Amino acid sequence: MNQVYDRVALIGLGLIASSMFWAIKRAGLAGEVTGYARSPETRDTARRIGLCDRICDSAAEAAEGADLVVLCVPVGAMGKVAQEIGPVLKPGATVSDVGSVKRHVIESVSPHIPEGVHFVPAHPLAGTEHSGPESGFAELYDNRWCLLVPAEGSDPQAVANLRALWEGMGANVEEMDADHHDLVLAVTSHAPHLIAYTMVGVADDLRRVTDSEVIKYSAAGFRDFTRIAASDPTMWRDVFLTNKDATLEILGRFTEELFALQRAIRTGDGEQLFDYFTRTRAIRRGIIEAGQDTDAPDFGRGKTAQ
Amino acid sequence: MNQVYDRVALIGLGLIASSMFWAIKRAGLAGEVTGYARSPETRDTARRIGLCDRICDSAAEAAEGADLVVLCVPVGAMGKVAQEIGPVLKPGATVSDVGSVKRHVIESVSPHIPEGVHFVPAHPLAGTEHSGPESGFAELYDNRWCLLVPAEGSDPQAVANLRALWEGMGANVEEMDADHHDLVLAVTSHAPHLIAYTMVGVADDLRRVTDSEVIKYSAAGFRDFTRIAASDPTMWRDVFLTNKDATLEILGRFTEELFALQRAIRTGDGEQLFDYFTRTRAIRRGIIEAGQDTDAPDFGRGKTAQ
Repeated sequence: MNQVYDRVALIGLGLIASSMFWAIKRAGLAGEVTGYARSPETRDTARRIGLCDRICDSAAEAAEGADLVVLCVPVGAMGKVAQEIGPVLKPGATVSDVGSVKRHVIESVSPHIPEGVHFVPAHPLAGTEHSGPESGFAELYDNRWCLLVPAEGSDPQAVANLRALWEGMGANVEEMDADHHDLVLAVTSHAPHLIAYTMVGVADDLRRVTDSEVIKYSAAGFRDFTRIAASDPTMWRDVFLTNKDATLEILGRFTEELFALQRAIRTGDGEQLFDYFTRTRAIRRGIIEAGQDTDAPDFGRGKTAQ
Repeated sequence: MNQVYDRVALIGLGLIASSMFWAIKRAGLAGEVTGYARSPETRDTARRIGLCDRICDSAAEAAEGADLVVLCVPVGAMGKVAQEIGPVLKPGATVSDVGSVKRHVIESVSPHIPEGVHFVPAHPLAGTEHSGPESGFAELYDNRWCLLVPAEGSDPQAVANLRALWEGMGANVEEMDADHHDLVLAVTSHAPHLIAYTMVGVADDLRRVTDSEVIKYSAAGFRDFTRIAASDPTMWRDVFLTNKDATLEILGRFTEELFALQRAIRTGDGEQLFDYFTRTRAIRRGIIEAGQDTDAPDFGRGKTAQ
């Protein structure tokens, strides 16, 4: 296989990092992979299941001597971890991350990156509703997008190596500007997640009225909403707090449109509803044509990515 | 196999009716199945693919002599179809439907049911994002719920036969009061669909800003929302117009909660967000335990039911 780095360090051992490890091993992309997680239980689990070649008891120990250090912690913790590992980073090494928000990560991590070390932020658009060190699997990134968000003037070789790693893990890689990334993700992921969380919360309140029927008869869409709303609470708290402006902007537009449709229902304007629903149906076809989903029926028993 | 009816008539030949036909055939539940669709093209397609034993050129012709007539048309068209077939219904026959709203269907269909004919409304909680006579398949109802909504004092044998038919098609059957049905479905299906339609509409507006990136990088939730928002526009227009009060009630609660979460984002109240997301995650576990979904990852490439 094609080794890209001699040593890779994964800081934070949840779904994303554990899937990276298995995907790196599958393709032989690194000589050694070290790992660190803040919780001793997670480190014990990792050692037990053979996650990483070596589990270290501090982030600095894992990062020391690594050619690539990937920060796989919640967005709100990135700055603190960068501060811890900054002093031990090897000259010429690359630091990257997997955060769902990029502007905030760049602002909190960059000050801790020493001269001579490259920082190339990244965001793999993949996930499941599960989290933790045992939730990873080698195929998670196959045919999913990974967006690289290098600052202007980044070292071309550092960017090329990171691209080779992600492509070796199965992903399709593109580059994007940080602010643009945060707006696109607010539309495609962050606002939909908050909406799903909200709808599931409403149903939970109503469960006291309808007993367990809301769960028992959870047709799609609600079932799909619960899947989205089952994602890791810490990760999503940080996403909303750190991509605040774009998320609130999209939610504002969403509320406007929702009010317009509510009024159409109240006034019985069937034509407006029909036209709206016809328009949205066409977007679905675009996504299937773009290869980001299939339209084969599986009776609602499928699973989702974040 | 166990034949339940000598002759079944399916009025309207979309996803639900065509799946019923294949499921009825799979289990030998009826001697003959007649079918009718308003559009000549749909009738031609049905004849070409062998959908129904006999395709008729009027609803009355299909219903005449049938032991069970199932109205599989959009909720807003049920009354008109009932009026057309009322005069030819066989004494002792049963009329049923598959509408997603029950109170409105009962009010619009009941006046056209003659003395001596039984009306037992039903609602199978199953579907895909596809519609039309070619979208059906025999397995659609396997292990899905079908809710029967008989009026008080309904003929027990008529209800028992309809239950046997749905169980024979693979469904789990329960009985429910019409108003309660409409509230539960507003929570689990109708409000989530309107919300998904809205979010996809917002993204469509923004597509002009972000070109095709909203589609290209459509992570879940957005991808899941587009799947929900791809359902049949006529069917959903009628659902919202005929389950207006319950849907608007749920949407009102939804907007209240969404505003509270938006404020938490704006003020940076991470604790409130974390607690909310932790609560909704537990609901997901309830749904998996209730057998209405699985938690096996399939990388977001799965499909959904309505």
